[in-house]
Amino acid sequence: MKFYSFWRSLASFRVRIALNLKNAAHEVVLVDIDHNEQRGADYAKVNPQMALPALELDDGTVLFQSIAILDYLDEAFPAPPLLPADIKGRARARALALMVACEGHPLLVPRVRQYLNDVVKLDRNAQAAWRKHWIVETLTTLEAQLGGHRDTGRFCHGDAPTMADICMVGHVSIAVMQDIDLTPYPITTRIFETAMALPAFAQAHPLAQPDAPEAMRRK
Amino acid sequence: MKFYSFWRSLASFRVRIALNLKNAAHEVVLVDIDHNEQRGADYAKVNPQMALPALELDDGTVLFQSIAILDYLDEAFPAPPLLPADIKGRARARALALMVACEGHPLLVPRVRQYLNDVVKLDRNAQAAWRKHWIVETLTTLEAQLGGHRDTGRFCHGDAPTMADICMVGHVSIAVMQDIDLTPYPITTRIFETAMALPAFAQAHPLAQPDAPEAMRRK
Repeated sequence: MKFYSFWRSLASFRVRIALNLKNAAHEVVLVDIDHNEQRGADYAKVNPQMALPALELDDGTVLFQSIAILDYLDEAFPAPPLLPADIKGRARARALALMVACEGHPLLVPRVRQYLNDVVKLDRNAQAAWRKHWIVETLTTLEAQLGGHRDTGRFCHGDAPTMADICMVGHVSIAVMQDIDLTPYPITTRIFETAMALPAFAQAHPLAQPDAPEAMRRK
Repeated sequence: MKFYSFWRSLASFRVRIALNLKNAAHEVVLVDIDHNEQRGADYAKVNPQMALPALELDDGTVLFQSIAILDYLDEAFPAPPLLPADIKGRARARALALMVACEGHPLLVPRVRQYLNDVVKLDRNAQAAWRKHWIVETLTTLEAQLGGHRDTGRFCHGDAPTMADICMVGHVSIAVMQDIDLTPYPITTRIFETAMALPAFAQAHPLAQPDAPEAMRRK
């Protein structure tokens, strides 16, 4: 498999964690979004949507959309599972993952930031307020869903990482990068720290990637 | 099961289609977002995120996030399936669904429209331009993914409706409501019309719901 990745892409971060957890052999192809390589002719052949990440299977099939890739990896490499064993637990873990993937994250991606900057002409302070507003909103809803729910354990659902943790750590990571105070979200923060202590998560972090800028990279 | 629904909610539309396709017995509870009923104490007990839709199971378990609910319904009521039988096909159908659910739709929801209006103070024309920009972007990527792909059939993937069609019809419906020219998207439009000719889809349409405004409602 070839995994098309960019260090800062939070959707790439999700797939990296899953590939690590599954210990699935793959080659990484770095695509530099900061230099618009995802819009180049080479990558357009791989993914006409010109978005990251993408997973190219050995028969040439290209998978896209990070959550769909997580589901594929979970079916292709069943151990360890990325979803709970019971049907209601799976629905909860998926819902927590989708709260990030369908609500928090889409408002923070480069194409939206570009539109706000270039078309809406938001100034820097207003752009920062936009980011903070949506990061905090999703942190608040995550904390409300995780806090006091009997199925919340060491991780978002039970005592093993699932798709919910995979998506949540990306959201908390962006909150950390934006210097947002995590004090109001103690359960979310505890689970984030538990997950990020696992090598599969830590090694997938944006700042641990070989294409992260030298000055920021974690050694 | 109790299904908490609002006529205009595109995420509710998705779940209505799935409930119809599965012929799953349920009671509908209408929540009037236009009068902020989703923020009232009654609904907050059901879904602390105060978002629609939600599916309350007979044991009191509340499921949220439309895509997670679709997956639950597909596991609980296997026939007819909402996903293809093969693992790569499932990944493709999921990815098409998520292109709408994680990219197009999140930029068009009420909370974002309210922020643009109340905080960013975008004028009416700029708000309309925002909506059109993101609707067209997702239509363009859908058409690129559907057009010329060997697995596109009568529906987005093959000859039976899947999760991809369930999400796509909501996106095209909002394009129709916003008077966007569909001429550049012939394959998407053809599949939309094929899907909407099915009673399970037609009866789930926002304007076919009992809580749609009388003047707009389809008889």
